Amino acid sequence: MASRTLKLVVEYDGTRFVGWARQSNGLSVQSVLEDALQVITRESVRAEASGRTDAGVHALGQVVSIHLNHSITAAKMRVSLNALLPDDVAVLSVEEVADGFHARKSAKSKHYRYTILSDRVRRPLLLRTAFHVPLPLDVAAMDRAAQALVGKHDFSAFTKLAERKPSCVRTVLSASVCKHGPLVQVDVTGTGFLYNMVRIITGTLIDVGVGRKNEDCIAQILASKQRTCAGFTVPPYGLALVEVHYAGDLRV
Amino acid sequence: MASRTLKLVVEYDGTRFVGWARQSNGLSVQSVLEDALQVITRESVRAEASGRTDAGVHALGQVVSIHLNHSITAAKMRVSLNALLPDDVAVLSVEEVADGFHARKSAKSKHYRYTILSDRVRRPLLLRTAFHVPLPLDVAAMDRAAQALVGKHDFSAFTKLAERKPSCVRTVLSASVCKHGPLVQVDVTGTGFLYNMVRIITGTLIDVGVGRKNEDCIAQILASKQRTCAGFTVPPYGLALVEVHYAGDLRV
Repeated sequence: MASRTLKLVVEYDGTRFVGWARQSNGLSVQSVLEDALQVITRESVRAEASGRTDAGVHALGQVVSIHLNHSITAAKMRVSLNALLPDDVAVLSVEEVADGFHARKSAKSKHYRYTILSDRVRRPLLLRTAFHVPLPLDVAAMDRAAQALVGKHDFSAFTKLAERKPSCVRTVLSASVCKHGPLVQVDVTGTGFLYNMVRIITGTLIDVGVGRKNEDCIAQILASKQRTCAGFTVPPYGLALVEVHYAGDLRV
Repeated sequence: MASRTLKLVVEYDGTRFVGWARQSNGLSVQSVLEDALQVITRESVRAEASGRTDAGVHALGQVVSIHLNHSITAAKMRVSLNALLPDDVAVLSVEEVADGFHARKSAKSKHYRYTILSDRVRRPLLLRTAFHVPLPLDVAAMDRAAQALVGKHDFSAFTKLAERKPSCVRTVLSASVCKHGPLVQVDVTGTGFLYNMVRIITGTLIDVGVGRKNEDCIAQILASKQRTCAGFTVPPYGLALVEVHYAGDLRV
C-alpha cells in the first residue's frame, strides 16, 4: 500500500510528445515521467496530472501527483528525476503533500496561455511557442469580447464535436487578451476545460481581432451551442498550461 | 554589373546550422539565403553578412547586403524570400540602400546578448536559447567586472588561441549584466569581435558570478593576453546577435 503522496510541478516543451497522456502512437510526457519514477523507486508509480495536454501543447507548471512507498526525500526525488528525464521535460519542484491530494481532483482552477505572434513576418526563435498571424489584430476588441466567456456557461460551441462531453457546462474565472510588442497573449483561467476549448476560444478571438466577427459575438456563440458558430482551432504549439491552483489547506 | 544594393535584416534560430558562413560540412544560413535569392532573381547573388555567427548561434537582427540587377521591389523581395526560406530563417525587412553599403564594412558596431538561466532546474522551453548554470550568480559583481571590458583593449586572452588574428585590439562600447527573473543577460556592444570573444567573456563573468574569480580580474586577464587566464567558453546556443548599427547617412 502506497504510504506517501508527492506533488510535482513539471515544465515541458510539448513539441516532441503525443501529449501528457500515455498513448500507443508515440512518446508521452506521462510515460517518460513514469519510466523515470520506476528507475528511482523500483515501484510501479502512476503519475496523475491536473489534466491532459494535447500533442504539441507545452506546460510551464503542470502539476502531477504520485503515490509511493519509497522513502526518498522530496529534494532527492527532484534531482534524481531531472537527471533521468530527457532535456525537454523538467521537474521544477517536489513537495510532500497530504495523502488526500490528487493533481486533478484537488485542482481548483487552471491557467492556460495562448501566444500569438501578430506581425507580417514570422520569428524563427518563436516558432515552437507562438502561432503566427500575419495580420494586425484589434487587441482591445479581443479583450472586450473575451469578457463574455467569464462565468458558468455551456461551452458546447467551444469543443471538438467528436469529443463532446455529456455536460459541457464549465466555469471561466477570468479571460484577457493583452499585447507585449508583437506578441498577443490570450489568458484563460477556469475550473475546468473541454477538449480544444482554449484553442477554439483563441481562434474565435482572432476572428474578432481581424474584424471577421463582432466583439459581442461570444454570447451568441455560447447560446448557439454549435461548434460551427465558433472560430477555427488554432494549432497546439501556441498553447501552454501556465499554472494549476489548489486550496492552500491540502499541503502537509 | 550589379546595379542595386539591398539591406536585409534577418532573424534565425542557429540550432540546425553550421553557422552563417557557407561550409562544406553542413547547412549554413548563407547557403539557404543565397539559394532562395537565386530562385527569385535567376542571378548568382552573394549575401554578405555583418559578420559570421558560429554554429548554433542565433540572430535576432543579422544584417545582410546583396547586390543584384533584378528589378524586384524591396517589399516583394521580403515576401518572396520568406516564402522560400525554411521556417528557422526569416527576413524581417528589406530596404534599398546606397551602392556603397556593405553589411560588414559599413557596420559601426554590433550588439550581442548571451542568455544564462541561473536556477537549480533547467527550463525545457529555454533549452535552445539559454545556457543553464545551476548555481546562484552575483549579478551585480558580474556587471561591475564587465565595465573593465569597455574601451580599446588587446583582447588576445578572450579568443580561441588557434584562431587568433594578427591584431587582437578591439573596442567594446558597452558591457552590462542584468537579471530578469531566473535569466541573466550579458550584453556586449563593440565595433568588432574576435572568434569566441563574447562566449569567453561570458564564461569569465560566470566565474566572477560564482566567486571563482574576483570582480577586478578583467584588467589582469586583458593585460596577460593569455587565453588560459580567462574563463571557459560557454556553449553557442545562449548567444544571439541582437542588432548591427550603421551610420544613418548610408540609407538611400
